[in-house]
Amino acid sequence: MAVPHPLAQLSPDELVKARDIVAKLHGSAESLFFRAAYLQEPKKSDLVPFLELEHSGQLTDDAKRPPRQARVEYDVIGAQHHEHYRAVVDLGTGQLVSKDVAEQKAYPYYTPGEFSQFQDACVASELFRDAMSEFSLPEGYDVSIDPWPYGGPDDTEDPDRYMQGLVFAVDSTKQNPDSNHYAYPIPIIPVMDWVKKEIIRVDRLATGGSTDGMAPEPKQDSPRKLFQGNQAAEYVPELLDTPLREGLRPINITQPEGASFSIHGDGLVEWQNWRFRLGFTPREGAVLHDVCYENRPIVYRLSYSELTVPYADPRPPFHRKQAFDFGDGGIGRAANNLELGCDCLGAIHYVDAYLPAPDGSPTSAKSVICLHEQDNGILWKHTNFRTNRAVVTRMRELVVQFIATLANYEYVFAFKLDLAGNITIETRATGIVSVVSIDEGKTSKYGNVVAPGILAQNHQHIFAVRIDPAIDSYASDGTQIVIEESVGQPITKASNPYGNYYEIQRRNVEHATWIDAEPRLNRLLKLESSVKKNSISGKNVGYKLVAPATQMLLANDDSVLAKRARYAQHHTWVTGYRDGELWAAGEYTNQSRAEKGGVTDMVKRGDWFTGDGKPTNGTSNGDVSHGDGQRSSPVVWSVFGLTHNPRVEDWPVMPVEIYQIHLRPADFFTRNPALDVPSTRNKASVLVPCCGGDAAATNGAEQKDISASEQQNPLSHLQGTGPDIKAETAGASEADDGKAESKLSKAFTGLFKRDK
Amino acid sequence: MAVPHPLAQLSPDELVKARDIVAKLHGSAESLFFRAAYLQEPKKSDLVPFLELEHSGQLTDDAKRPPRQARVEYDVIGAQHHEHYRAVVDLGTGQLVSKDVAEQKAYPYYTPGEFSQFQDACVASELFRDAMSEFSLPEGYDVSIDPWPYGGPDDTEDPDRYMQGLVFAVDSTKQNPDSNHYAYPIPIIPVMDWVKKEIIRVDRLATGGSTDGMAPEPKQDSPRKLFQGNQAAEYVPELLDTPLREGLRPINITQPEGASFSIHGDGLVEWQNWRFRLGFTPREGAVLHDVCYENRPIVYRLSYSELTVPYADPRPPFHRKQAFDFGDGGIGRAANNLELGCDCLGAIHYVDAYLPAPDGSPTSAKSVICLHEQDNGILWKHTNFRTNRAVVTRMRELVVQFIATLANYEYVFAFKLDLAGNITIETRATGIVSVVSIDEGKTSKYGNVVAPGILAQNHQHIFAVRIDPAIDSYASDGTQIVIEESVGQPITKASNPYGNYYEIQRRNVEHATWIDAEPRLNRLLKLESSVKKNSISGKNVGYKLVAPATQMLLANDDSVLAKRARYAQHHTWVTGYRDGELWAAGEYTNQSRAEKGGVTDMVKRGDWFTGDGKPTNGTSNGDVSHGDGQRSSPVVWSVFGLTHNPRVEDWPVMPVEIYQIHLRPADFFTRNPALDVPSTRNKASVLVPCCGGDAAATNGAEQKDISASEQQNPLSHLQGTGPDIKAETAGASEADDGKAESKLSKAFTGLFKRDK
Repeated sequence: MAVPHPLAQLSPDELVKARDIVAKLHGSAESLFFRAAYLQEPKKSDLVPFLELEHSGQLTDDAKRPPRQARVEYDVIGAQHHEHYRAVVDLGTGQLVSKDVAEQKAYPYYTPGEFSQFQDACVASELFRDAMSEFSLPEGYDVSIDPWPYGGPDDTEDPDRYMQGLVFAVDSTKQNPDSNHYAYPIPIIPVMDWVKKEIIRVDRLATGGSTDGMAPEPKQDSPRKLFQGNQAAEYVPELLDTPLREGLRPINITQPEGASFSIHGDGLVEWQNWRFRLGFTPREGAVLHDVCYENRPIVYRLSYSELTVPYADPRPPFHRKQAFDFGDGGIGRAANNLELGCDCLGAIHYVDAYLPAPDGSPTSAKSVICLHEQDNGILWKHTNFRTNRAVVTRMRELVVQFIATLANYEYVFAFKLDLAGNITIETRATGIVSVVSIDEGKTSKYGNVVAPGILAQNHQHIFAVRIDPAIDSYASDGTQIVIEESVGQPITKASNPYGNYYEIQRRNVEHATWIDAEPRLNRLLKLESSVKKNSISGKNVGYKLVAPATQMLLANDDSVLAKRARYAQHHTWVTGYRDGELWAAGEYTNQSRAEKGGVTDMVKRGDWFTGDGKPTNGTSNGDVSHGDGQRSSPVVWSVFGLTHNPRVEDWPVMPVEIYQIHLRPADFFTRNPALDVPSTRNKASVLVPCCGGDAAATNGAEQKDISASEQQNPLSHLQGTGPDIKAETAGASEADDGKAESKLSKAFTGLFKRDK
Repeated sequence: MAVPHPLAQLSPDELVKARDIVAKLHGSAESLFFRAAYLQEPKKSDLVPFLELEHSGQLTDDAKRPPRQARVEYDVIGAQHHEHYRAVVDLGTGQLVSKDVAEQKAYPYYTPGEFSQFQDACVASELFRDAMSEFSLPEGYDVSIDPWPYGGPDDTEDPDRYMQGLVFAVDSTKQNPDSNHYAYPIPIIPVMDWVKKEIIRVDRLATGGSTDGMAPEPKQDSPRKLFQGNQAAEYVPELLDTPLREGLRPINITQPEGASFSIHGDGLVEWQNWRFRLGFTPREGAVLHDVCYENRPIVYRLSYSELTVPYADPRPPFHRKQAFDFGDGGIGRAANNLELGCDCLGAIHYVDAYLPAPDGSPTSAKSVICLHEQDNGILWKHTNFRTNRAVVTRMRELVVQFIATLANYEYVFAFKLDLAGNITIETRATGIVSVVSIDEGKTSKYGNVVAPGILAQNHQHIFAVRIDPAIDSYASDGTQIVIEESVGQPITKASNPYGNYYEIQRRNVEHATWIDAEPRLNRLLKLESSVKKNSISGKNVGYKLVAPATQMLLANDDSVLAKRARYAQHHTWVTGYRDGELWAAGEYTNQSRAEKGGVTDMVKRGDWFTGDGKPTNGTSNGDVSHGDGQRSSPVVWSVFGLTHNPRVEDWPVMPVEIYQIHLRPADFFTRNPALDVPSTRNKASVLVPCCGGDAAATNGAEQKDISASEQQNPLSHLQGTGPDIKAETAGASEADDGKAESKLSKAFTGLFKRDK
């Protein structure tokens, strides 16, 4: 078998080998619990020389290759304590490269398997049983628990690794395991100690309305009857209370000659001048490496980094309701097995991945990524108004998509490359909003009543996308970040006498820092080559980041929620590159009290990008410390979000909310890179002449059509076809028949001098 | 023939009748020039009772109908002066309803036919000939002129109706009328007096760089040789300097069972619970009337209103370069004749319109609007993580699209309705950026050099969309506008002890006013019923307007450009409804000095929406005058734009820039209105197993696949398939096989009390 590419995912054999190396490091008395195992990506300084050889076509069999390594994350399970390890092993030498243990109170993410253990702990719990005795459920209703991360602990507590659960009832009389239990929330939250493996507390929840205060109701003597007015909230078709809608006739998307992209076993994807390596990690899902257009690099690594979901209900313990879906759960681990014709239409390629079982053995995760092409409307068009000749091209996109389920909620993530050199990063939020009980008939300022007895709490979703740029070069000093703004100017006689001038103002980002969006200034981040100029414009070859100016984190600056997710307070971060630094909110978000090792720390250490690190303009933070700083290449983190105050329409499953950020070439090319896209007429398209039976009038059948050639000419209606009337048609006399321009050109010949 | 619907477009017979009524009003000595003729929409107070009868199914043949009227816009051509008239005629009685003449210095838009007259005037002009004598063109180059509106006159001049032209050369040696003349700009601008029909001035243009000052170069003794270093900028395929790209295999979009929408001859469109009337006007293009979902009205009238394009080059006469593409030109008049398989893919219905010839006779404009359905990815999805059952539905959109060419530039406008009750208004900008000469080798702060000798000037495109809402009612006091913000809160022991709470703050828009976007507050406009409550949430039935917070007009507040386009200074305007008030920048933008009758004037007159008009909160302008104000229903104008600092990639034809605004239901429905969309698997989709020849490894062929049922269960990878090792797999022992939940539910039975 050929040597794998340095960015190829680990094979099952490699995963087994890595597991075995790690297992040998521990004695037989130690119990290991494997959480993740995946490619340890090469150091950038090792990989770049390889990529440069590869792209220049000079890669030989004996070229120096970065060492092939695996990263293994696992717990050593003790009776009083679990220790979490991160080991890197060399698959070539079979040797351990590094092994370290997470510091105390730094807890790894949950694996799906841990979810069921949480439920077992509830079953076994006297505390839980006692708490449930407060309620009376309708006949035939059983209990179902959604595990949730515990969230950021209060200052007054010092918990070990905890997990909490949202408790629901399920109407088992329907005898359908997909009956929607979220319609029946039970107002308690059990808390489990993960080392003791037992429920250590059950929090009672307030269920009142806006005027009822923060505390839960006192316990009553007799059991509270739950769900007296609740309504089913089914979404699986066989349980719907209404018939499915009719008349939605199929749209088929086909590629009779096949797809236009190619994907190789080592993850290399090639499509229409684009080329990249497709990776997949348990935490991030799909990752794009070494994204090039016409062999010119643009992005070294492109990935989603984090997503925090803080809830705004202040009533304890909801103040701890804050998920980090990448750091607490892992989007790759939660990735759906995608299905042809549902998740994607057309000609689809699916990619599998391997995730480790608790014993470290590789398990195939089928179809966790899909690749396909799609049409996205008009790409460019121009009609020559003199001849009416139109040239139209269609936008084609290559989509790399993955979908994750986090208990109740779904995200659809996509990277889209297109024919015009754009990279679009699209996020769709869907699934079932997180709900809690509210006394029937009450309303709340903490959320919206989406069904009787059901409160969907206000919350935010704040995403971070990590962009490690390589603008036309892999060199560590090859890319610079520039803030560009369009700024209106005062009227001055000398330079702006009429007031229409605005100035494009630019300043280099010299140090690691954050930058907020400012639409009033059309503030943009440019990712530019620091050395290469565009041969036409003379400007730096570059891309611009176009991201929506969405609302950032609303939690109070002094709250634990904000301390854990400082990244979510600013729209963009620029930090100095370090190998393995991938996490906007730090590596260990689960139960964190503060963002540790996240973008705030990266900024604080004071990396700089130009010169000797001494600031020369206003873009650096004042408190830059050069203690750990070094000259680095810049990494850009784009943060955007959705303030989600639920609508009734979001129940029981919400229609997608879509957010896009874009990387668009800005003087990267010497002209429109899609100019050579054929303006081919699609022959499969058909006319819908008339659907309602009497569209003839609209279609002009009542009126003798004028000829096609007349139609083609916007000047032709100067030749009226109506009855003759006395009124002189001023202007019409001089109209021409579409040849006006060429006649005019002729008339001009001789009006001006010719070159000799 | 049946009586036409009050919103049906005028038939050719009606247009002829209208023209004849108008012609009779004028003596045979008067020359008439017809500019536009179209349906005079009924007064709202006349139409609403009709619509209410219609929607309640109580419309009878003898029901009172609004009078059927036509609006005719025409000039009376005099030797010293042209007068512009607007007449309304009753097609039933054959009588004139009203006729008025535009005030002095209010000039109507141009018609395409006037373009060629401008060129004729140049041919005949000694001034133009003299100006051209300054230059020497390469052998075989002819002159081609793009007419432009004159723009806002300076304070020092008092022009009659003028037109200016951008002058280019065309390489006629190519013998192709579609050779791109924009590659060869000639630095003069001829100005024509439209009454005298002659060129009255030729402005010479500066061609220097950033350091060359504002004035044009002095005239040289010997002719300037132009285009010495210019390069061709062809975009028609047969003239391209490179071959068309290969390998883009077709994507076919087909509807084998036909389209799902129906369109009737009177413009009624029905699709998936939606129903609206499709209109078309010479100025606006497509207009949506009476947009209903399940027979509940949402929008009374939806249209694009205006678009201004100011340029930022301060060198005279570029300071007057500011187009109003609706008011100066007319988007409907400039609408492309769309083509199957290029402008739209799939099963397409095309709609024709009638525009008047200069003599007033109706001329068919073919295929100016297209309607089709398209797939837009996932609509909603949820996977039950316990059973791994996924339910996925696809987003289907009905698209109403039209495309306009304004000389060099194109806009693609679309209204999209979808299955989740959303209305999306999408604008794509494409075409050829407006360029001028720059001395070779120089660069400019006024724009970007997109090809040698070619400067694409910085500019903005600022759009206004007019939304006349009717939220679940046509009543004039049925709809209210509310500003909603999400606001972070201080930490207080009583109400926000942990700092996670944020408050949704609401305030009514009581008076006509403007409202700027504020993403920091997630500021939204809600269009709400003032009387109907959502039965679930108790909140007002409503829709929310979601629009991007783009940069507004940059021209200095005191500039003529800003005075003409006050609407472009704020993101949203709310004004009081008056019949016929459709224009954000006023009716007469051509050569305007100020926005007259636009949104600023509408706000100034002080209409109010609630109570007696006395302000009770802070949303009203301080300077409200009640002089002309009245209690009205609110109309919303959404303004958004594109600050377009051209990229080299925008040359010679730019890839689309896409902007969307959305109307999304917010407690309008009692649950997700798309819950009943079938989650049907599309059978035409196919697997792309592997394109590169060796994708087998990626597809897991190296590894024995685990069974499909195991794959379906995210808990299943707790059952490792790897080799047996000593390390104990903590947690795995308690894992289950996908039935974990039902087992758990069983275990819970008896843990809690049951209702009696």
